[in-house]
Amino acid sequence: MKKLGSLEALSEALRRLPGVGPKSAQRMAYHLLQHDREGAAILGIALTHAVERIQHCASCNTFSESEVCETCLDAVRDTSLLCVVETPSDQMMIEQTMTYKGLYFVLMGRLSPLDGIGPKDIHLEKLVSRATDGKVQEVVLATNFTNEGEATAHYISETLKARGLRVSRLARGVPVGGELEYVDAGTIARAMLDRRTT
Amino acid sequence: MKKLGSLEALSEALRRLPGVGPKSAQRMAYHLLQHDREGAAILGIALTHAVERIQHCASCNTFSESEVCETCLDAVRDTSLLCVVETPSDQMMIEQTMTYKGLYFVLMGRLSPLDGIGPKDIHLEKLVSRATDGKVQEVVLATNFTNEGEATAHYISETLKARGLRVSRLARGVPVGGELEYVDAGTIARAMLDRRTT
Repeated sequence: MKKLGSLEALSEALRRLPGVGPKSAQRMAYHLLQHDREGAAILGIALTHAVERIQHCASCNTFSESEVCETCLDAVRDTSLLCVVETPSDQMMIEQTMTYKGLYFVLMGRLSPLDGIGPKDIHLEKLVSRATDGKVQEVVLATNFTNEGEATAHYISETLKARGLRVSRLARGVPVGGELEYVDAGTIARAMLDRRTT
Repeated sequence: MKKLGSLEALSEALRRLPGVGPKSAQRMAYHLLQHDREGAAILGIALTHAVERIQHCASCNTFSESEVCETCLDAVRDTSLLCVVETPSDQMMIEQTMTYKGLYFVLMGRLSPLDGIGPKDIHLEKLVSRATDGKVQEVVLATNFTNEGEATAHYISETLKARGLRVSRLARGVPVGGELEYVDAGTIARAMLDRRTT
């Protein structure tokens, strides 16, 4: 049996998703075509729209459809506080604790020299110019408490302290080795309240 | 933080994939937007194309971009043999054994009364009219050897024998309870050679 162009292309394309191998991709393709063509059409459009419309916020670097995201434009937020997180998920977790009313900077990654991820890849220049805008008084480092997150926090801390900024780190209420995204909100709230100047 | 329209829509849409929950969907969305926008664009186009182009073969019922698929149009195949399988994956497995040169009918499912899947859902009328075209001499039932696959084979066997067709079943070289897609080609080859009239 010769494989079909469109079907083969769909299976191949589904393998671009993280954690999806050839068998899963084929099962997904068959499932969508046989049982959920509407879902396939919706997903196709959602992907195309997302790629076209979503860029990075000019201010905080998170995903945004506008040049500056809604959080950065929020007038009630405390512009003297800047919280640095690795991913939008981490930012969402902190928002859910309701203990922080400042602004954010989303690195979209972490330093990881072994994987070739250096300061440029986590947009450090953008962070420095954002943090030295004259309004920010304190930078709260909320990278993960993994080895790489700690190294990232240390690196950023040194860089920003050299420019005269106050730098703090989430308190160690967060379990060592844990990732923010999977910690309960109470623990993150405790860590936010207990943050200390480094 | 307010969620973004396009990003939220993408996460929601990714959940239409089988086996993908909210956390995986979000991770997939972030991964694509951050690390593989090209992949996201390709997948979007592949989905749209597949939904637009792929229909069911008028003859064997498998996925096809043309009205009749390439396998059914293949002039060297033995038109007196018709092999009934549940899915295109099963058909592909049988093709790989190189022991079968007839044609196929793909049910795109199996009888499962508990799930409300009856004879109509597995295109039984289409199968009957295909099998009674005057050329087909023998129908080889190659549904899975699960309870549902066996019940499906039994039901089809009774229906076609009532119309005077010879009906055979893959030999029980295939382990009971196993699914064709995951059995080694040697076992399927043995079962194809040992098929017996029911």
